[in-house]
Amino acid sequence: MNEQDIAAAVERIVRGMRSPGEHTCRCGKHALTLDKARALAERVLRRAQEMGVRAVVAVADRGGNPICVLSMDGAYLASWDIAVNKSYTSVALQMATRELATLAAPGGSLYGIQFTNGGKIVIFGGGEPLKADDKIVGGLGVSGGTAEQDTALAAYGREQFEEMTQC
Amino acid sequence: MNEQDIAAAVERIVRGMRSPGEHTCRCGKHALTLDKARALAERVLRRAQEMGVRAVVAVADRGGNPICVLSMDGAYLASWDIAVNKSYTSVALQMATRELATLAAPGGSLYGIQFTNGGKIVIFGGGEPLKADDKIVGGLGVSGGTAEQDTALAAYGREQFEEMTQC
Amino acid sequence: MNEQDIAAAVERIVRGMRSPGEHTCRCGKHALTLDKARALAERVLRRAQEMGVRAVVAVADRGGNPICVLSMDGAYLASWDIAVNKSYTSVALQMATRELATLAAPGGSLYGIQFTNGGKIVIFGGGEPLKADDKIVGGLGVSGGTAEQDTALAAYGREQFEEMTQC
Amino acid sequence: MNEQDIAAAVERIVRGMRSPGEHTCRCGKHALTLDKARALAERVLRRAQEMGVRAVVAVADRGGNPICVLSMDGAYLASWDIAVNKSYTSVALQMATRELATLAAPGGSLYGIQFTNGGKIVIFGGGEPLKADDKIVGGLGVSGGTAEQDTALAAYGREQFEEMTQC
Repeated sequence: MNEQDIAAAVERIVRGMRSPGEHTCRCGKHALTLDKARALAERVLRRAQEMGVRAVVAVADRGGNPICVLSMDGAYLASWDIAVNKSYTSVALQMATRELATLAAPGGSLYGIQFTNGGKIVIFGGGEPLKADDKIVGGLGVSGGTAEQDTALAAYGREQFEEMTQC
Repeated sequence: MNEQDIAAAVERIVRGMRSPGEHTCRCGKHALTLDKARALAERVLRRAQEMGVRAVVAVADRGGNPICVLSMDGAYLASWDIAVNKSYTSVALQMATRELATLAAPGGSLYGIQFTNGGKIVIFGGGEPLKADDKIVGGLGVSGGTAEQDTALAAYGREQFEEMTQC
Repeated sequence: MNEQDIAAAVERIVRGMRSPGEHTCRCGKHALTLDKARALAERVLRRAQEMGVRAVVAVADRGGNPICVLSMDGAYLASWDIAVNKSYTSVALQMATRELATLAAPGGSLYGIQFTNGGKIVIFGGGEPLKADDKIVGGLGVSGGTAEQDTALAAYGREQFEEMTQC
Repeated sequence: MNEQDIAAAVERIVRGMRSPGEHTCRCGKHALTLDKARALAERVLRRAQEMGVRAVVAVADRGGNPICVLSMDGAYLASWDIAVNKSYTSVALQMATRELATLAAPGGSLYGIQFTNGGKIVIFGGGEPLKADDKIVGGLGVSGGTAEQDTALAAYGREQFEEMTQC
């Protein structure tokens, strides 16, 4: 790491340290930028580390397309696709993936939805839509722990995101 | 936060940083070579033959990529993909596939995981992670018998592998 | 951004600032950690920004599995898959993807390789294998600019990685 | 490796050393057994090693289904699919894959065949049909070297197979 790296890293930090006002209405908080996605992912990763979970964290934009995915050392290989698909599912169905566990179970009103979208619909916890001003601007997917841990981490991320983008 | 604060924070972190670990292992048992994979597959095939099972045996490396797959005469055609996917699943989720039978059943906490990874997650017995020094170095997949037979053969293979790689 | 965020960001910087010696042989420089992958991706993103390219940057581990993928604001949606596949191709074929442009063209000795691996082989520039001690430890994929720009960015990343992991 | 392993390995070698007469009519040379497939693969691997090529060798049965695939240490990850697909192509089109290089090039009579079979048709050298009594009983696929090396290794394997199964 050289001076440029440090300068850039510090710039990123400082950018993130700006007062909340600078993130508000005028600068388009509805856009889920890479900077926000990355900052969110980092917070979730840090919490995962505290919980002893080796997670993959994925952030998708409002089109359901991933913009930032990070895999902690030692995370399950399978968690990559699951985290990405959770972030997609949260946007695509505009709900937390844990809500689908019941809806998509045999007998549930959405039973079968897990087969209709090319395997991209995840029906257990760990995915949360990301909202700003009550509009969905993206999705968060977390995979790597138990269903409970993933669900908790995604919920934590959702809250963090709301805090980050608050007016 | 100003430069001084950052400098102080840096100093704290640096002080808390531990020296590089000693991860070395000169005997290189962590590498799953073709020789080891083949020797393992042969042992499992031999046991399958004793049990009257016509099995496909697959060994994957730590990246989930297959390195040795053998199909006994008369094995089910479908067993090839199943064995390969079991070896992948065991590495990718770091657990025996039989553990997924409960977790991924309707009502289980991972119900739906079988649909999210391009059909590569197998949720019945016959896959086992392969460990050396408590690190996962690959995966074993067996398919061709009943679920019980495949499960027993994979467990046998796991034990054999541990015996083979013991210091 | 709060104190925790700053502490974590600084920790990342410091980790990257450690003298090259601390990354060397004993501490397993052959492992492509998330920290290294992210630091590399950031450098490439920064250079892309300087060049006016909106890129997706992907880093895969030695098994070809992605561990860090970042999409700059305004990048092509299609660039995600292309960057991921370039990182895969570089590991899977142990060469820069630009070398495949000739080999896989009609009349070339590998014409057709682009169709045989589930669409994961990219045959134009922007993918580079990442080496440490002459061993391939991962792959880098860049997509978003012209072929020349992607190729230049990937080559830049390869050099940066070598510098980062040098003994 | 213990006594059992050694016994098995020796058995395999001896099986390969038996005079041609022992392979004849009575033992059903038209059936491509795992024993024969493995013995063939071992011979090709040995030759590859002599040539300094890190190859994946695949043997498919007359249905085009793989029965033995082995990946040498350090082989390209991409070579697995390519070798398997070469073994399939050789059976499925009843010709060496190098013959397709011309036929499937733009302007050739089979141009486009590389797109019609789910990416399973390989159109460069390294695949050879395996014949006994002028009947195709399987296919051999080799990947890992240059097109010339793969082509030479597959041709070598084809000859070896004919020698092994000769009356």
